[in-house]
Amino acid sequence: MSVVLRLAYDGTDFHGFARQRSRPDGRPLPTVQGALEGALAGLYGAPIVTRGASRTDAGVHARGQVVAFDPPFSIPARGLLLGLAARLPATVVATSAWEEAGPDGGPLEPRHHNLGKRYRYVVRCAGLRDPLRQRFEWHRPRRLDLAAMRDAAARLVGEHDFASFRAAACQAKTTIRQIDAVTVTAADDGERLGDPALVDGGPCDRVIIDVHGQAFLHNMVRIIAGTLVEIGDGRRAPADLDAALAARERRSAGITAPAQGLTLLEVRWPRLADGAA
Amino acid sequence: MSVVLRLAYDGTDFHGFARQRSRPDGRPLPTVQGALEGALAGLYGAPIVTRGASRTDAGVHARGQVVAFDPPFSIPARGLLLGLAARLPATVVATSAWEEAGPDGGPLEPRHHNLGKRYRYVVRCAGLRDPLRQRFEWHRPRRLDLAAMRDAAARLVGEHDFASFRAAACQAKTTIRQIDAVTVTAADDGERLGDPALVDGGPCDRVIIDVHGQAFLHNMVRIIAGTLVEIGDGRRAPADLDAALAARERRSAGITAPAQGLTLLEVRWPRLADGAA
Repeated sequence: MSVVLRLAYDGTDFHGFARQRSRPDGRPLPTVQGALEGALAGLYGAPIVTRGASRTDAGVHARGQVVAFDPPFSIPARGLLLGLAARLPATVVATSAWEEAGPDGGPLEPRHHNLGKRYRYVVRCAGLRDPLRQRFEWHRPRRLDLAAMRDAAARLVGEHDFASFRAAACQAKTTIRQIDAVTVTAADDGERLGDPALVDGGPCDRVIIDVHGQAFLHNMVRIIAGTLVEIGDGRRAPADLDAALAARERRSAGITAPAQGLTLLEVRWPRLADGAA
Repeated sequence: MSVVLRLAYDGTDFHGFARQRSRPDGRPLPTVQGALEGALAGLYGAPIVTRGASRTDAGVHARGQVVAFDPPFSIPARGLLLGLAARLPATVVATSAWEEAGPDGGPLEPRHHNLGKRYRYVVRCAGLRDPLRQRFEWHRPRRLDLAAMRDAAARLVGEHDFASFRAAACQAKTTIRQIDAVTVTAADDGERLGDPALVDGGPCDRVIIDVHGQAFLHNMVRIIAGTLVEIGDGRRAPADLDAALAARERRSAGITAPAQGLTLLEVRWPRLADGAA
């Protein structure tokens, strides 16, 4: 049986989820996986290798990352969660734990076992930064045309070749991906910051882009967010999105939106679909 | 005419609002006032001395701090706010600016000119920390009895001698203060973190304590929050609050709740009372 953990983290101070080679001076780079494996090694008294559902980039956050590993012995879920809470840095929390067998009883591989992912990108379009939220938003003080963004977002849904929407470094063999839904929502701060007459970003303080899909290429959600924002700006027309998809080259899509606006909200999971955790 | 600014900041990385003497090695301690005065000096090309309404402690946040200064020349409000946004660290934002004369045309002193303050203290009582909110909450994974906390909170309202509710270092001449309202509210995360059956903090995820008053002693809100939490825990009875007020000695009240849970929400101001900013 593998153990599966659901993780939430503030990615600001990490070099991404995935464990990395050390720096030239031999010190390890701080990563979420490295922090988690260090805490697990302390609990189990043995090295533990984890496998994550998503390799979130440096600065990207998570509310529902899923990680699996194969423990040397069983620890009850409550003890595991509280033991991890005591050992992990304040910016990482394991929020659920359960045991689950992989296909044919083998190790569980979250990258293949999941049923899709839900990402959220937050653009703050108000005139001023919110200093209490700036770790979690892309501050871009311009009016955005939500109708144009929604028109473009609808064009992403379905199975497409997303070759234009991946980082140059992306190693995926196929660039065909399935997007289930993209929503563009306006949000206002409960308490407006500052005088809207002086520094007005438009009809709302924040624009929230939610992307649901089966699987994603490297930087795909951030390039989708960057392209939708360029469309919201009026610098591109919504129909440009069809052209960007058809072109199959990175430069035909928009910019890669900065990491800090992105959160992995949820990894859909067979067992979680019925509300078990 | 003085210039008045409304400030929001994440206090995590500052040694409080008030400018302080330098470290032994001669480097200045990072403070909100120091950062603001540095940015203002850049804009005006001259040293600027500011006066704040509240000396928030190290780690305490603000949404509505008010600061005044006397500029060598006038800069329009929009230019001042955007100029400060470009010069201040990402964790500090000036959200409103206006010119206002002090009494008899002299310099405006926010400590005396304000009509009261509103502070918010957030206790996270759920079993697990929220890593995306941990800079702004006191995580204390225990059930809290909200009815007992509300009973005690009501006893604080009115004019009392708060000598038991101030830091040993507090220099105030009188310890009589007027509290206008104390509310205790339950809040749940939109998206619950983790399995409530495994790690349950009680009937809600967070308890929010709002304190409205005319003026406060050093650490007064944090000691009120710490005392209300001890009452919510059942370690003290609500009526203990009357005894703590009557005793007029620090040890008869509860602990000083940690700084990161506290935010200065609002400084009430004559000109802001009618919605001008």
